[in-house]
Amino acid sequence: MPTKNQIYLDNAATTALDPRVLEAMTPYLETYFGNPSAVHSHGRQVRTAIEKARKQVAGLLNVTAGEIFFTSGGTEADNTIIHGAVQSLGLKQIITSPIEHHAVLHAAEKCAQLNSIPLRLLEVDQNGNLDYNQLTQWLEKEPDSLVTLMHGNNEIGNLIELKSISEICQEKGAFFHSDTVQTMGHYQHDLQSLQVQSIVGSAHKFHGPKGVGFLYIKKPHKIHPLLVGGSQERNMRGGTENVYGIVGLAKALSLAYEEMDSHKTQILGLKKLFIEKLSKALPEVSFNGASGDLEHSLYTVLNVCLPASKKNEGMLLFNLDLHGISASGGSACSSGATLGSHVLRALDSSAERESVRFSFSRYNTTSEIEEVVKVLSELYLEKL
Amino acid sequence: MPTKNQIYLDNAATTALDPRVLEAMTPYLETYFGNPSAVHSHGRQVRTAIEKARKQVAGLLNVTAGEIFFTSGGTEADNTIIHGAVQSLGLKQIITSPIEHHAVLHAAEKCAQLNSIPLRLLEVDQNGNLDYNQLTQWLEKEPDSLVTLMHGNNEIGNLIELKSISEICQEKGAFFHSDTVQTMGHYQHDLQSLQVQSIVGSAHKFHGPKGVGFLYIKKPHKIHPLLVGGSQERNMRGGTENVYGIVGLAKALSLAYEEMDSHKTQILGLKKLFIEKLSKALPEVSFNGASGDLEHSLYTVLNVCLPASKKNEGMLLFNLDLHGISASGGSACSSGATLGSHVLRALDSSAERESVRFSFSRYNTTSEIEEVVKVLSELYLEKL
Repeated sequence: MPTKNQIYLDNAATTALDPRVLEAMTPYLETYFGNPSAVHSHGRQVRTAIEKARKQVAGLLNVTAGEIFFTSGGTEADNTIIHGAVQSLGLKQIITSPIEHHAVLHAAEKCAQLNSIPLRLLEVDQNGNLDYNQLTQWLEKEPDSLVTLMHGNNEIGNLIELKSISEICQEKGAFFHSDTVQTMGHYQHDLQSLQVQSIVGSAHKFHGPKGVGFLYIKKPHKIHPLLVGGSQERNMRGGTENVYGIVGLAKALSLAYEEMDSHKTQILGLKKLFIEKLSKALPEVSFNGASGDLEHSLYTVLNVCLPASKKNEGMLLFNLDLHGISASGGSACSSGATLGSHVLRALDSSAERESVRFSFSRYNTTSEIEEVVKVLSELYLEKL
Repeated sequence: MPTKNQIYLDNAATTALDPRVLEAMTPYLETYFGNPSAVHSHGRQVRTAIEKARKQVAGLLNVTAGEIFFTSGGTEADNTIIHGAVQSLGLKQIITSPIEHHAVLHAAEKCAQLNSIPLRLLEVDQNGNLDYNQLTQWLEKEPDSLVTLMHGNNEIGNLIELKSISEICQEKGAFFHSDTVQTMGHYQHDLQSLQVQSIVGSAHKFHGPKGVGFLYIKKPHKIHPLLVGGSQERNMRGGTENVYGIVGLAKALSLAYEEMDSHKTQILGLKKLFIEKLSKALPEVSFNGASGDLEHSLYTVLNVCLPASKKNEGMLLFNLDLHGISASGGSACSSGATLGSHVLRALDSSAERESVRFSFSRYNTTSEIEEVVKVLSELYLEKL
């Protein structure tokens, strides 16, 4: 649960572990410790738990258990599918965008270089919208492509048109992967109605434990593993399974699906309130990407571009922290985030104005939002 | 802690989480959940915990904190160093042995293929001893090599002469990696007195949590990461850190070092008792590899080769399990271990005789060993 007395608005970086998830994990921390690969009763106890978790996740996404592979997190899942798809299917081009998470962008760069194939980045406009026509054109020239585009942007909240893109890819015969780390557990993913070949999830983004994630690969695709060394995960991922992590992931995703509607309503309400109150208090603010648009952005993310201010230049996150507010500049998923955001750079965002990402969860309250708006107003109204 | 009423002798596959380790992890499961990459107070709380853990591990191994990189386990650590060393240092040959764990053997095969370099396997004799002269000869022909040899064999318990091999490698200028997963936390590793460039650890092998391990890389070696996507672990491993896992790993390793002498005495006593009692009860038994030799094998592993017996053929692990005993045939780290052991095959072990690996921990007792010998005697004396 959140630390007391500090307002936590960095939920796109990580979320608090739900106590009900920890409760589900506890028997596998305290009592059932066997190695799931062992054939004896200690092993079978935990093997059963893992396969139950796999079925739960598969059921929620409307796929079969054989299409779900547990990993150590979203980054490993993205790295695995990018290398695996290109090498196993002999793909000849990678298409992605400059505003992807580094887990995709850097893995795609590495993979393109290793396999001596071109990496193409779709153009984005100042609001972070992708050029879908360019995608079509590139796929017409080279259909044997990996297209990897994130569903919801972790910094500016933009949602892509997953269905349209998947249809373009299907029509051209490309392999379409989507990094769904930010939408998993926050949006419904019905994979029977979507032509996406692979998506990923990271438990700690939806109130599950850190150190565990998963990769969905649509049947009958078969790709080579990235981590080899054992026949775990049906030869897709060597290494003893993180049993409590996997149990926690499934529990967290189940809870997220059960309670999605009420959480969405609550969080969207907080975001709307934030936009309204802040726009009134500081009329000069704008919102980066689509994050100010309630319909076309993640309801969990608001990226605020603040007026120029000597006092806050390079100091805004620090000033907020002094006032007991945890937020992020760009993406806090990357150590040394103070280097600045490659996403905001790709949008040609003004360098003089400070941007801060507030990201919400069901643990946030109206009074917290009011407090943050008050603090921001004070920081920016005193001696602008 | 171990499940009650079932004798657990599969500690080389995984060990029970020490309740003191879980206690150390709990604040990071219940309260401190921030993303260590974030600059605000939620992030700093956990960043501090991770860096404290890194210093603890480094201190125990007598290295600097900058040489320790946390991973999702031993398999990821082995995969990372094998690919990283070959690609970053431009190595031209990989030398390993046929009795390595698959995390090394399969990663080495994949790496050799990707980089179009030869993979050479040292010859082993029937007891699992390596041919060190062959190593010297191969390195004389090609010094720019990765040598990767495990310290303690997970199946047959053989310990290599780490110091001699490291000196051969140093003299010839080769990069020496050792998979120390089975000895970490059970033997002292003083890395100032050893010319090994990298070693690995997996927390769940020494009563720590699953899903977390580490890689030591001697300075000033710099290798490329395997998982990219963030600047975590000083650019060596992308992905949000498994904070509670890392805290648990450091606590488990600290406890292991503090209590190593007494645990070693206790466990070695159990192994000695097992050998004596079983040899007396069933004089036909032999011990695979060096595991029957108390001085030259892991004190935690005993690999027993049993007399031919129709009743137990292909059924021994099942029969033991029915009697409440958890043990392993070959290595249970690999799913579907019933395929048989590549290690025993490399030793030309008799296919007609069943082999079973018993592996011990500090939670085992004298009466458990006596019970297991009794059960084995009954299984083999009735209608041989």
